[in-house]
Amino acid sequence: MPFVLDAAAQDLLFREARTPQTFTADPVTDEQVRAIYDLVKYGPTAHNQCPLRITLIRSAEARERLLPYMSDRNRPKTATAPLTALLAADNEFHQELPRLLPHLPQAGDLFYAQRSAREHSALVNASLQAAYFILGVRAAGLAAGPMNGFDAAGVQKEFLDDDHTPLMIINIGRPGPDAFGPRAPRLDGDEVITTV
Amino acid sequence: MPFVLDAAAQDLLFREARTPQTFTADPVTDEQVRAIYDLVKYGPTAHNQCPLRITLIRSAEARERLLPYMSDRNRPKTATAPLTALLAADNEFHQELPRLLPHLPQAGDLFYAQRSAREHSALVNASLQAAYFILGVRAAGLAAGPMNGFDAAGVQKEFLDDDHTPLMIINIGRPGPDAFGPRAPRLDGDEVITTV
Repeated sequence: MPFVLDAAAQDLLFREARTPQTFTADPVTDEQVRAIYDLVKYGPTAHNQCPLRITLIRSAEARERLLPYMSDRNRPKTATAPLTALLAADNEFHQELPRLLPHLPQAGDLFYAQRSAREHSALVNASLQAAYFILGVRAAGLAAGPMNGFDAAGVQKEFLDDDHTPLMIINIGRPGPDAFGPRAPRLDGDEVITTV
Repeated sequence: MPFVLDAAAQDLLFREARTPQTFTADPVTDEQVRAIYDLVKYGPTAHNQCPLRITLIRSAEARERLLPYMSDRNRPKTATAPLTALLAADNEFHQELPRLLPHLPQAGDLFYAQRSAREHSALVNASLQAAYFILGVRAAGLAAGPMNGFDAAGVQKEFLDDDHTPLMIINIGRPGPDAFGPRAPRLDGDEVITTV
């Protein structure tokens, strides 16, 4: 057995977890999301930059503002999910580095003086954190429905500012009726892994 | 208790897991990495694109080819880690989509006809998979030391091709003596999460 993590936990996070197409009406609270964040915030990022920012689309008014930007395929499920989270990358994360990286407080000037370098690194590292967050949602017994099908420029203008780039939108809840189609295949290890 | 995942598993994956600066000599086998991949491959990506590719730097000869590209800070630990993995994004992932996304086999033409769109999406989604992989390493009772401090263009030329972009390099093994400094702080939830 190569794993320390038990099989039930492996199933919960990876093997049995799926992206749902429908949700029950069971609410998802801000406290649940906060607990998820307080767990997954420990996942590593480059220079501990922690660029992920989360906007919870909670009110009916905010949801109505979001829906026009969703693709036709994603709009119905976003209209009915208990909670929708907009994940974004903070391109000005370097302002927090003196606090987040106390052993190298000059990291912002050394590595991230250029906005283009910050945007690239924030995109990669907020994506790492988005993956930790998705697994955290599953660890909380909930299902995550991450989506890229939306008007990113429109969502940025509606909910964020020029320094925050939308990364993905995630519906969160418990799977409803007919939530899952057949699981799509994955690449085999020998298609992905090369040893040199 | 907001979590289904038990506290020991939360600790293993997030709270107690750390990025080690030193490793023991205990080997990490290709079979372990394959088992880790076979678990984490189920993590979601956009359109199931699965763009992550992994090159295991196993031989002494390959390690000697890699070391000159590592930053001064990362070279000594990469020289002594039991195994080093080069993670890359496959910018031509769309060629696999008819097989990976059987319910929407035209997704490659619809969304990824432009190389620039593929590069952006591969970067984000390979980053998601890199995060799943890091947690998979931890699930296997090993420690992951992800690094961005290397000459990416040089590593690409030495080990990859024009279609594969280096994403990060990860040392894998068991923590050695003095492996950990103090844990750096994280942003609080109320600095990261906004509810609208």
